[in-house]
Amino acid sequence: SKAAPQAQMEWDYDGPCMKTAVPGPRSMRLKQLGEIQNVDAINFFCNYEESRGNYLVDVDGNRMLDVYTQISSIPIGYNHPALHKLMADPNNLSTFVNRPALGILPPGNFADKLAESLLSVAPSGMTRVQTMACGSCSNENAYKAMFIAYRVSVYTKVEPGCPDLSILSFMGGFHGRTMGCLATTHSKAIHKLDIPSLDWPIAPFPRLQYPLEEFTRDNAAEEARCLEEVEDLIMQWRQKGRPVAGIVVEPIQAEGGDNHASADFFKSLRNIARKHGCAFHVDEVQTGGGCTGKFWAHEHWGSDDPADIVSFSKKLLTGGYYHKTDLQGYRIFNTWMGDPSKNLFLVEVLNVIRRENLLEEVTRSGKALLQGLYALQEQYPGLLSRARGQGTFCAIDIRDDPTRSKILLKARDKGVLMGGCGERSIRFRPALIFKEYHVALFLNIFNDVLAEFK
Amino acid sequence: SKAAPQAQMEWDYDGPCMKTAVPGPRSMRLKQLGEIQNVDAINFFCNYEESRGNYLVDVDGNRMLDVYTQISSIPIGYNHPALHKLMADPNNLSTFVNRPALGILPPGNFADKLAESLLSVAPSGMTRVQTMACGSCSNENAYKAMFIAYRVSVYTKVEPGCPDLSILSFMGGFHGRTMGCLATTHSKAIHKLDIPSLDWPIAPFPRLQYPLEEFTRDNAAEEARCLEEVEDLIMQWRQKGRPVAGIVVEPIQAEGGDNHASADFFKSLRNIARKHGCAFHVDEVQTGGGCTGKFWAHEHWGSDDPADIVSFSKKLLTGGYYHKTDLQGYRIFNTWMGDPSKNLFLVEVLNVIRRENLLEEVTRSGKALLQGLYALQEQYPGLLSRARGQGTFCAIDIRDDPTRSKILLKARDKGVLMGGCGERSIRFRPALIFKEYHVALFLNIFNDVLAEFK
Repeated sequence: SKAAPQAQMEWDYDGPCMKTAVPGPRSMRLKQLGEIQNVDAINFFCNYEESRGNYLVDVDGNRMLDVYTQISSIPIGYNHPALHKLMADPNNLSTFVNRPALGILPPGNFADKLAESLLSVAPSGMTRVQTMACGSCSNENAYKAMFIAYRVSVYTKVEPGCPDLSILSFMGGFHGRTMGCLATTHSKAIHKLDIPSLDWPIAPFPRLQYPLEEFTRDNAAEEARCLEEVEDLIMQWRQKGRPVAGIVVEPIQAEGGDNHASADFFKSLRNIARKHGCAFHVDEVQTGGGCTGKFWAHEHWGSDDPADIVSFSKKLLTGGYYHKTDLQGYRIFNTWMGDPSKNLFLVEVLNVIRRENLLEEVTRSGKALLQGLYALQEQYPGLLSRARGQGTFCAIDIRDDPTRSKILLKARDKGVLMGGCGERSIRFRPALIFKEYHVALFLNIFNDVLAEFK
Repeated sequence: SKAAPQAQMEWDYDGPCMKTAVPGPRSMRLKQLGEIQNVDAINFFCNYEESRGNYLVDVDGNRMLDVYTQISSIPIGYNHPALHKLMADPNNLSTFVNRPALGILPPGNFADKLAESLLSVAPSGMTRVQTMACGSCSNENAYKAMFIAYRVSVYTKVEPGCPDLSILSFMGGFHGRTMGCLATTHSKAIHKLDIPSLDWPIAPFPRLQYPLEEFTRDNAAEEARCLEEVEDLIMQWRQKGRPVAGIVVEPIQAEGGDNHASADFFKSLRNIARKHGCAFHVDEVQTGGGCTGKFWAHEHWGSDDPADIVSFSKKLLTGGYYHKTDLQGYRIFNTWMGDPSKNLFLVEVLNVIRRENLLEEVTRSGKALLQGLYALQEQYPGLLSRARGQGTFCAIDIRDDPTRSKILLKARDKGVLMGGCGERSIRFRPALIFKEYHVALFLNIFNDVLAEFK
């Protein structure tokens, strides 16, 4: 395979470097962790001290180009100098050492840090934000906010209590695994197995053909079918006495297989929500933070009023949700309600994104990545299909699940770390510092891997 | 009032020092945070840099003796030198900067850090631990683990799916506010208002008379009544087709009003759980970490097999739960699954607890505190009642809720920060470094406050 270009960032490595099979002997020994907790899902053990930029180093010294980034949660690569600089400033240490109960005793600089971090990237129409410790808690509390708002809207008609309300979600959606979230998660049956659920409506999510621009008519018909079903379900659940207080949707279904839909679909869905008095919740836990080439994936819809509530976590380093003014935060409470030390990091991450024009970089790298995937798909028609993506948030389907597993392992042995999603997709989730030369490097290795499966 | 003794730790302040009313003018200005999020529950804004040991300093320079400690979540006081030392070690920085997806790519030292931290204080009979990011996620996932274990236990008889199972909880219990947790939380109606719930059984928690040792016979009868009701509910819910997979209980109901029960009660409850094939989950989110004079409150029961699952958060700095080997961790998963930087802090906290014999200190301070509360209760019989506690985890009832509110504010103006719980209790939740001279100092000020209400 061709050598990759050499114009690396100073602190990045210049390519993968494999010393052992993965997991190597040290990782295998560390699997003694199995005496303490379940290790079935562990790939290998990492040396985070030695990891840098786009490269994850394992405990056996293997250095891999990371296009999965801790399930899409590392925004600007490993050990970014800006984050280390922050840690070296003694003024910041107290924020790490004294974690406050933010809902009652916030630090004096809390509003400023929110303004510098989360509010500086607030979605259109949203001036309010509530931090939480993780993505699941963000969605759980967003649902609560929607229930409370719904009850306020019909307040004169109801008795105080725990009402039978519901959240409408989509087949293939993933919103977390705590019990409220799990009732709206439908990406894999195994997530829900053995856990009690709630009788809430589940709408079909459009199953589109890719590239989207080549199948506009068929795709529009499929989206219309799903929207109609959404309205039917809202009516049915109202008749059941379990009205839909909110609709939750991902801008791109991630865990469920990187399923896209058009801007028109989401704008229509938002109108349906408004028409029926349901809050509209856009879950940007995986899509948010710049990986689609815009800071929020919903910005691609071109709407001034995209949502009532937008939740986030992962690349934002803290969980939480934005909401419109009329969705009150009252009664949303827990001990920590986030972690101000994560806001400190986020300020620096956003500075780096702006200073280095990373959204433009992502758009550029993303185009190169998608073009490369299209080319590989033509080259390996029986093996690859449905290449799709926005920014570097790309995916491609493999002919079947066992082949996907083999490809992921083979790529790892050659120094590229990727992840799967859906039934037979590979998802690409590089950091925002994944440049065009990383794309070229990746495509070369991926090509070498695929050649073995021809 | 008498002056407090002067033998402070070097890095602690020597007493409260009030400069303005609370909230002072700077705190009032910072309430502009209300433009970003709900600020109804905010007391004042803090200067965590200047806070030290048992003293919380606010942005107006007021220094308060803190017997509430961020809702019981600061184990060894503010800005403990041991925690700052940890931050000064460059070997630790990568752990803060690179947060891993622990379930798939843990750092090489993860098992060691778990062994040094959480496993070194594992409850009797428990060798396995799963970290989580907060208390709610800990309990949500503990419930899931109990559901999965229940299904395994009856596996040959069931079809795959989302079964109608339940968790039995207690009136007055608090286990968090995400939807699964909230279905088991019954401390205040406002927590549950407007949020859909689940049809799960709720048992009465004993309403005992204090001091416990003076009312043993009446209390035993009350506990027997509650235990009988637990068994009845287990039978009823089984007949309903919604069997009880687990029982969740706090060793001392905290948020619900510091309600204690005897060791016999808990041991009998544990036996009932075993008899009916329900997992027994002890929620030590608020009681764990040493404040009762033992590291876990359930150690006061003197049982070798106290529980199947023990959840924690707050003073442990990371959330999570311990469990017995036969409760499998498989299918318990999310992106972060905790935060290794919190484990680093916990290692140091545990070192300090051991080095400074803080459990003995807590026992000593707790005795002084409870004796002091007994004395005040005799002195102000119409105002105070039901003084109770274990270690420094103490509480006392005030004659009514409005008087409680006034006492809390008056104490704050005199430099003591306390919190309420239940309908009319004040709870004491000092850090583990709250010494006998802090107790004396506190009791003096509290006495001055109470004198104004005589």
